[in-house]
Amino acid sequence: MDKPLPILYIGAPRTCPDILHATGFSASDPVLLLVMPDGALHLTVSVLEAGRAARQVPRAKVWTPESLGIDIGARLSEQTAALLRKLRLSRVAVPDTFPLGIAGSLDKAGFDLVVKPARGLRRERLVKTPDELKKLRATQRAAVKGMLRARDMVESADIGPRGILRLDGMPLTAERIREAMRETILPLGCIDEDTIVAPGDQATDPHEMGHGPIRAGQFVVIDFFPRSLETGYWGDLTRTYWRGELSAEQIRMYRAVKRIQALTKRRIVPGADGAAIHQAVCDFFREAGYETGFRDGKAYGFFHGTGHGVGLEIHESPVLGRVGGPLEANMVVTDEPGLYYPGLGGVRIEDTVVVTPKGGVPLASCPVPAV
Amino acid sequence: MDKPLPILYIGAPRTCPDILHATGFSASDPVLLLVMPDGALHLTVSVLEAGRAARQVPRAKVWTPESLGIDIGARLSEQTAALLRKLRLSRVAVPDTFPLGIAGSLDKAGFDLVVKPARGLRRERLVKTPDELKKLRATQRAAVKGMLRARDMVESADIGPRGILRLDGMPLTAERIREAMRETILPLGCIDEDTIVAPGDQATDPHEMGHGPIRAGQFVVIDFFPRSLETGYWGDLTRTYWRGELSAEQIRMYRAVKRIQALTKRRIVPGADGAAIHQAVCDFFREAGYETGFRDGKAYGFFHGTGHGVGLEIHESPVLGRVGGPLEANMVVTDEPGLYYPGLGGVRIEDTVVVTPKGGVPLASCPVPAV
Repeated sequence: MDKPLPILYIGAPRTCPDILHATGFSASDPVLLLVMPDGALHLTVSVLEAGRAARQVPRAKVWTPESLGIDIGARLSEQTAALLRKLRLSRVAVPDTFPLGIAGSLDKAGFDLVVKPARGLRRERLVKTPDELKKLRATQRAAVKGMLRARDMVESADIGPRGILRLDGMPLTAERIREAMRETILPLGCIDEDTIVAPGDQATDPHEMGHGPIRAGQFVVIDFFPRSLETGYWGDLTRTYWRGELSAEQIRMYRAVKRIQALTKRRIVPGADGAAIHQAVCDFFREAGYETGFRDGKAYGFFHGTGHGVGLEIHESPVLGRVGGPLEANMVVTDEPGLYYPGLGGVRIEDTVVVTPKGGVPLASCPVPAV
Repeated sequence: MDKPLPILYIGAPRTCPDILHATGFSASDPVLLLVMPDGALHLTVSVLEAGRAARQVPRAKVWTPESLGIDIGARLSEQTAALLRKLRLSRVAVPDTFPLGIAGSLDKAGFDLVVKPARGLRRERLVKTPDELKKLRATQRAAVKGMLRARDMVESADIGPRGILRLDGMPLTAERIREAMRETILPLGCIDEDTIVAPGDQATDPHEMGHGPIRAGQFVVIDFFPRSLETGYWGDLTRTYWRGELSAEQIRMYRAVKRIQALTKRRIVPGADGAAIHQAVCDFFREAGYETGFRDGKAYGFFHGTGHGVGLEIHESPVLGRVGGPLEANMVVTDEPGLYYPGLGGVRIEDTVVVTPKGGVPLASCPVPAV
């Protein structure tokens, strides 16, 4: 096995979860972070940030261009070179997302950068601490509150002319539901973007956010992934609701998704492989007669992954999908099988769960309607 | 002059403003974008996004791994190689922020990547269209509403024991002001993070967000930079408020900042250079006796830039600072000089302005208190 290398990150902590995770330091301007094999941190920030960085990251040695003995306006590549020289390092690991321009400058200056896949480079991010689980649960509880608000709107709506749902005398639209969900989570310090509220066939284009009036007898797929403005941790929750009568085919499809979503949860245990879990979902659907394929430029059936890690990023490692990888206790992943067929619409049910020996335990509990 | 090259971007549109700007397409998962010298776009997305991408970006040719004839699970580097081969391109420009890992794969596959500074690579982003100005004004108007709410809280507070301000029977704190500002802008579809409400000496650490009770005779620096959740465009606005009596020294400092902020606005015209505008601010302060320096690990005086571009990023080109560069009509930049001295506190006044031949015109008007 290779001798572990220091890992070099460059980025704005606010948009660079590895830096945010390692330091707890949030800033909009780029910083340098060096994570030593023994866990020690070296953080280079502008002189404007030095005081705050020293207070907020007591375990890091905080550097500035001044303390590195270089010009206050030195470029990030120059700052990096100065820090590496100061620490007598000539070889460091960098994530494969590392900026090409700075890599080129460091290469020219004689440093050796060993490129590693960004996902999982800091394994500490994959397995969540008790404090992180607490933060993730808080966001997920907010997501549940928003979701139940959406459920109540759909289920208490009247069925008006042409089957269009009506609530408080107005058509019930995807937009109204989305707005009510946001109103519910904002006082809890969370914000959402691009929440999916997709009625009928709109849900068969899984990245269509959904729009317009909702009709009786249609599935409404609601995929809600808020983020805590305070902690930065995400939640992720999907339910499928409806009002009025479903067809026999719709009922069968809903039950299949509900069944495999519950079964999959039991498979989310330490040592399980994400690819095997995903394959089991694919097999289940195929054996139940739900084909996956591609027609007229559009995918149908079950054509997305079964799950993904959730933390400071909404999509992070590990993957429950074609890529896979072993699960460990206290990882946090989604369990979100779904089926999509034009004419029937979409069904997706998703919980975000903690990996435990007894299976995936949802971060927060949210009823799944029966039919 | 070099023959213009196609520009290759890779990233999640939601966090990659160049892709978002060129396409108007927002997504959380990474896409490939090729901007041809004639403005034509090639966008590669997963099959899940293809329908939506084709609808939302009608002027782009939308590709998927399927239509490129490669495996549905192909890595981004493989997708890129396939797209470049399809278009018979062997040489493209990439921003210096381009991910090192993919660059390495493309290099090995025989492609020639010409690294260019990311800022300003797509010049279309620097000069705002009428539609963009409309969106920027809408966000800035929300910022003004939040700011006036803050002003009213400070100015209508009572002065309680030990000079602590009180409002509605409770101490007036930075946290209360920040919360009220957020409450004001949320119904306008905007959200803020890390709003600075920094009383007294807290403002001399310019990235300290500020906390705790506010006292009479203290400056409170409020730097508010909300983003529209709908359009993605930012606003940026700073005012300095106070309640009670200021010292003669504080008054002199406030007037100096107010004066140069207004003077600077007149200099923000097409053809002016950002570095020259910044130098004029530095000179003004020095001539007025306000020294800038560094003591006990802490900067004092005027130690940040005079301004920066604002758009789909809160900090974008051009820079009014040591780097500089020429301004053009309809660029949007901040004008934000400030002074910071422990003991006196901080004063910063900032407007976000459109570059016009008559000087910088604020996106939205917000009174600057006189003293």
